Amino acid sequence: MQCVVVYDISDDGKRGKIAEVCLDYGMDRIQFSAFLGDLAPTHQEELMLKAQSVLGKLPGNVQLFPICEKDWNARRVIAQKQAASEEGEPDDA
Amino acid sequence: MQCVVVYDISDDGKRGKIAEVCLDYGMDRIQFSAFLGDLAPTHQEELMLKAQSVLGKLPGNVQLFPICEKDWNARRVIAQKQAASEEGEPDDA
Repeated sequence: MQCVVVYDISDDGKRGKIAEVCLDYGMDRIQFSAFLGDLAPTHQEELMLKAQSVLGKLPGNVQLFPICEKDWNARRVIAQKQAASEEGEPDDA
Repeated sequence: MQCVVVYDISDDGKRGKIAEVCLDYGMDRIQFSAFLGDLAPTHQEELMLKAQSVLGKLPGNVQLFPICEKDWNARRVIAQKQAASEEGEPDDA
């Protein structure tokens, strides 16, 4: 099942570790602190337990949204790549 | 219908304007570049048209995920507030 994971964590180290957890589960980065990927319910639960373990008692917010096939097909996307003439410029997004 | 909007835009001005569009539609900020809110399909379409208008031909990615009630109820959330003793510290998340 497709899932979106979005987090808001001020501690740089913890934030990086949550990103690693998402990557370990094969998710794709869609933004600095947001990932998208196909996760079975047991993996959703595992990922969140690992995120909780990484975060400990520090302040932060991690949200995982499962998206059923019908909703997935109804998603709306704008995706524009950098023009070839601008490719040398850094992208700090 | 609950919706998650996540964007990845390198232009600071455009990114700020997309945030304003989301706020105009009554969405709540869940992260620097991610919003959550209740949007009817017509408003989902309007919001994305406005986002496209703001972005113009610049590179960027904006994704809107509608989330049905069943999926909404299956979302998983970790939400930890800053402890009272740390409240004076800045939060750069």
